[in-house]
Amino acid sequence: MEELDLQEYSVSIDLALEAKEWAESGGAGPIPGLVSEFTDNDGIKITRLEVQNDQGSRAIGKMPGHYITFEVPELRKQDTGLQDRVATALAQEFSSFLERIGVGKNSNVLIVGLGNWNVTPDALGPLVVENVMVTRHYYELMPDQVAPGYRNVSAVAPGVLGITGIESSEIVQGIVERTKPDVIIAIDALASRALERVNTTIQIADTGIHPGSGIGNKRRGLTKEILGVPVIAIGVPTVVYASTIVNNSIDLVREHLQQHTSKTDFGLLDSISEQERLQLVREALGPLGQDLLVTPKEIDQFIEDIANIIASGLNAGLHEAVDSSNVAAYTH
Amino acid sequence: MEELDLQEYSVSIDLALEAKEWAESGGAGPIPGLVSEFTDNDGIKITRLEVQNDQGSRAIGKMPGHYITFEVPELRKQDTGLQDRVATALAQEFSSFLERIGVGKNSNVLIVGLGNWNVTPDALGPLVVENVMVTRHYYELMPDQVAPGYRNVSAVAPGVLGITGIESSEIVQGIVERTKPDVIIAIDALASRALERVNTTIQIADTGIHPGSGIGNKRRGLTKEILGVPVIAIGVPTVVYASTIVNNSIDLVREHLQQHTSKTDFGLLDSISEQERLQLVREALGPLGQDLLVTPKEIDQFIEDIANIIASGLNAGLHEAVDSSNVAAYTH
Amino acid sequence: MEELDLQEYSVSIDLALEAKEWAESGGAGPIPGLVSEFTDNDGIKITRLEVQNDQGSRAIGKMPGHYITFEVPELRKQDTGLQDRVATALAQEFSSFLERIGVGKNSNVLIVGLGNWNVTPDALGPLVVENVMVTRHYYELMPDQVAPGYRNVSAVAPGVLGITGIESSEIVQGIVERTKPDVIIAIDALASRALERVNTTIQIADTGIHPGSGIGNKRRGLTKEILGVPVIAIGVPTVVYASTIVNNSIDLVREHLQQHTSKTDFGLLDSISEQERLQLVREALGPLGQDLLVTPKEIDQFIEDIANIIASGLNAGLHEAVDSSNVAAYTH
Amino acid sequence: MEELDLQEYSVSIDLALEAKEWAESGGAGPIPGLVSEFTDNDGIKITRLEVQNDQGSRAIGKMPGHYITFEVPELRKQDTGLQDRVATALAQEFSSFLERIGVGKNSNVLIVGLGNWNVTPDALGPLVVENVMVTRHYYELMPDQVAPGYRNVSAVAPGVLGITGIESSEIVQGIVERTKPDVIIAIDALASRALERVNTTIQIADTGIHPGSGIGNKRRGLTKEILGVPVIAIGVPTVVYASTIVNNSIDLVREHLQQHTSKTDFGLLDSISEQERLQLVREALGPLGQDLLVTPKEIDQFIEDIANIIASGLNAGLHEAVDSSNVAAYTH
Repeated sequence: MEELDLQEYSVSIDLALEAKEWAESGGAGPIPGLVSEFTDNDGIKITRLEVQNDQGSRAIGKMPGHYITFEVPELRKQDTGLQDRVATALAQEFSSFLERIGVGKNSNVLIVGLGNWNVTPDALGPLVVENVMVTRHYYELMPDQVAPGYRNVSAVAPGVLGITGIESSEIVQGIVERTKPDVIIAIDALASRALERVNTTIQIADTGIHPGSGIGNKRRGLTKEILGVPVIAIGVPTVVYASTIVNNSIDLVREHLQQHTSKTDFGLLDSISEQERLQLVREALGPLGQDLLVTPKEIDQFIEDIANIIASGLNAGLHEAVDSSNVAAYTH
Repeated sequence: MEELDLQEYSVSIDLALEAKEWAESGGAGPIPGLVSEFTDNDGIKITRLEVQNDQGSRAIGKMPGHYITFEVPELRKQDTGLQDRVATALAQEFSSFLERIGVGKNSNVLIVGLGNWNVTPDALGPLVVENVMVTRHYYELMPDQVAPGYRNVSAVAPGVLGITGIESSEIVQGIVERTKPDVIIAIDALASRALERVNTTIQIADTGIHPGSGIGNKRRGLTKEILGVPVIAIGVPTVVYASTIVNNSIDLVREHLQQHTSKTDFGLLDSISEQERLQLVREALGPLGQDLLVTPKEIDQFIEDIANIIASGLNAGLHEAVDSSNVAAYTH
Repeated sequence: MEELDLQEYSVSIDLALEAKEWAESGGAGPIPGLVSEFTDNDGIKITRLEVQNDQGSRAIGKMPGHYITFEVPELRKQDTGLQDRVATALAQEFSSFLERIGVGKNSNVLIVGLGNWNVTPDALGPLVVENVMVTRHYYELMPDQVAPGYRNVSAVAPGVLGITGIESSEIVQGIVERTKPDVIIAIDALASRALERVNTTIQIADTGIHPGSGIGNKRRGLTKEILGVPVIAIGVPTVVYASTIVNNSIDLVREHLQQHTSKTDFGLLDSISEQERLQLVREALGPLGQDLLVTPKEIDQFIEDIANIIASGLNAGLHEAVDSSNVAAYTH
Repeated sequence: MEELDLQEYSVSIDLALEAKEWAESGGAGPIPGLVSEFTDNDGIKITRLEVQNDQGSRAIGKMPGHYITFEVPELRKQDTGLQDRVATALAQEFSSFLERIGVGKNSNVLIVGLGNWNVTPDALGPLVVENVMVTRHYYELMPDQVAPGYRNVSAVAPGVLGITGIESSEIVQGIVERTKPDVIIAIDALASRALERVNTTIQIADTGIHPGSGIGNKRRGLTKEILGVPVIAIGVPTVVYASTIVNNSIDLVREHLQQHTSKTDFGLLDSISEQERLQLVREALGPLGQDLLVTPKEIDQFIEDIANIIASGLNAGLHEAVDSSNVAAYTH
């Protein structure tokens, strides 16, 4: 039996920050229903974006909710000091997120690592699962002996549709019904529109994970509606479509020319919208097998680094007893 | 928080064949309630053991049911021809098993790969899951287009308690409740009492998987009682306790001496039962950290070979359209 | 100590076929000193290019010599039948190459797998080494017992500069001086100018490996001048610069428009040469960290498939006793 | 061609400490020509053994020279604090060793990681190579810019005979002739006689590596005689023969009985020497394929931990600029 192609043509943009930029690239100015705030702390840029209502939601194609984006351009440089600072910053955000959505210190957390062990850029979720500190079995088997400061945490990597034949959403739903967590934290590898964001950006959102997002095939999402409990999504762009590299670059080239010369006439490429241009590039690359999802050559190391950062951040953010000044010591 | 030790002292014997030998080593002759039959086909020894009633069950500590054991001493020699013959023989047994327990050709199968990706001798289950052919998603998404001869098959690797904080039994139960398979095939790495059986023996049983068996910690089993559908268990010994190597060897040494000399006086070691002797060896090795579970040095290759054989056997046994004369072509 | 950046700005094109196309894109017609011939056999396109003299060499920046390029667009589709046909075609070319350069059936071959185990798109060479059949130790230890039809073959993976601190060329030179092979076959991962060629193209050349080629840092080559014996190079593009994806795509978009509309005015992008345009794109992408070497998301599987094809081709091409109708059976 | 079996029957004992114990088990008291000294520092036992002359050498089958053995029974417990202390202790011993054999601070070091990437218990050497800090390329390419406090260090993993067809000794010899190091540090996985020593013991010796030692096949050694420069050997037992587990256990059982009862009559097993008994056990286990080299089930994690400890120790011991109070920060 031939492998059926379940991949559909998709225009979804995984990062809310990119979706906002993309929507604003039309030039109509600020979009109603979106509120954002930005800080830059020594190489860690944090943008807090709130999609307040349906108008904002429709404009950028993202659910109403809170999106926090960490942009750390130097994150690909294997600087362990920077990695620890990012993990600590993540820990703080996780705590705040849980508090804001009313998840108390004694509530149970299920961490879900989406993705495929065997495809490196899609292995982020399973790698985080492997590195977080789980405690649920201690609570089940010897509840009196669990030291104070540890929350009840469990973690699963449900696999991908092509390996299991089952939507990860269904697998998680089954586990949730049996183990009754109070909140789910789902980690997923995303596609970005810009190579510079690949493995340098982490997004946290309280909106859950929606169908069609991320690298794999998802027909059903991981959301409060489906699972019955709040779902916090952590996403990291690890791949980018060749077509979006091309499309983005045309603007970069134009900007570069504007800074150095006075010539920026791109003819036809100027007269069509960015969306039309992307469509054009896709049509041109597609039939030749050129519109692949690509990832940086060094992806093996990058994925491992980011998985450790997220696991460290989760450990410190979920367990009060974990020393947040030494986050890395608790991952394997 | 210190890692709690959830491992309990266990005298369980995973292979029914070994349990029978162990029980018969007392010397009281054939055990009522056990019926066994043996064939040897060009290097593939097959023993069919039926535990017919409670008496037989109590005698060997195994549930009533059918146990088929493949012993292939040459299986560690990386002979691809032999591997294909074993896969074909497995395929036939899988088909027969399904028929006997009344599972028809159109019934749905869920394959469960127990164990831990990151511990090589415990990675058998996840490796099989990675290599079997799943089709459930085609049945769900485009049922009209599934070619004839393919059964509805899905597969999951639920992970281990130390990584997930959840019993694999609970995870499977949740998935079963959502996906409603007609039968479960569960693959697990086992502990053997004899080094010669490690990675050369495959056991199939219609009794499910019982608590405490296999390499990992299992407090709950995967059985028809718990899951509501029949559970066929496939087990391969991949580790052995140092203490059982020692205990077994004492008999081997005695037999060796009997063949070559007339002296076989082992003093105290002769005067105690085999069970007492094992207890003695365990006490002696334990405190020194010598009673480890060990595995052959070449385990990486052995596990990969056996996982491929089982996956090939399942593909041919479950899907009529798979050419059973070319079983290997369908694994990845 | 900070990691020094030893990577230099490079305009080198690894594939001779691409270098020829690039040179001809100037539009001046056929280049003297280049002779090429093309066949297409059921999905396997083979181009034989001879760089006959210095004029041809200067024109395309490639050493005089023979270059054979296999283009197999479907090679990323995991079709084992096609993979076997490619391996068989490779085997024939290897044999012919050895004959043409006067390497007889009894001559000794050293296979050198360049690259880095730990960086998936750069792991091709080491993976081939792991899968080829070596025999030199049998010739050394029990020469009388080696079955007829087996050539004396050895294989090494010298590692990369960043891990060893030694140029792979120096390591190979040391080994060559001690083991005295008659010919070297060096396998290397290359950078391509077109995404469609990544993991679908294999180049064989009798020119050795020159400094600066391939993915890693090479300051010295592996050539007959340096090593004293002929060096056959096998290269597979596994990565591509983001900038060349962009540059190439501009032409694809133009062609696409020409076929579907009458508008193809790209303004400034039309008025500069392809080389100037690439330079422009590089300047625009570079500072933002966007001009990465990228690789397809599925690189783990692709690399394994191609390494097996090359190893199978080498086994059948080097050893007469290997059944070329069943090439895959001899790799691990 | 069938894989020829190059493994020979071997009675060699890899650890000098075990060889001494084994020799002394005859009961004749202290052996002339052996001087040893022992310290125990908070869980790290260090034995310094000097084989002073031929008499001592013959008695234990080890070359004259210095052997330092670290025994750390808790090393399998993944305690990062203990791991760092062991790395620091190793660093001190490396420094002392280099000084004692007259290797100055400006001398060049070549680290050789023996063994096989693909066989976990034999992957120690290659894993250390991957994690040590190499600097030779900076000295070669930009000698003026190397920061003070860094020694000229390079590292290679030559592979194993079955993969390369070339003795690792020959490969190293070729590299040494070209790169002219002042001293070689060779890392190798060893076989132990006691399971408790596996992955808990590290031996450093200034005698080089001798034929037949370690896990793989070695017909030639890595010694000063062959390579022309001093060779320091670092060895870690990662496997043990099933037969030696059995043999050792007989004594453990006897000791255990002596402590708890008055009965210790083992008949025949008492009347033969330990050497005869081992021979007997080997004969009994051998034909059944039971005398395998085995390794603990958790070998994947153990090997990674020990490789990191050794790499950290080497980094701090070889480079003065490396902060010995924070050894772990310098490994990857």
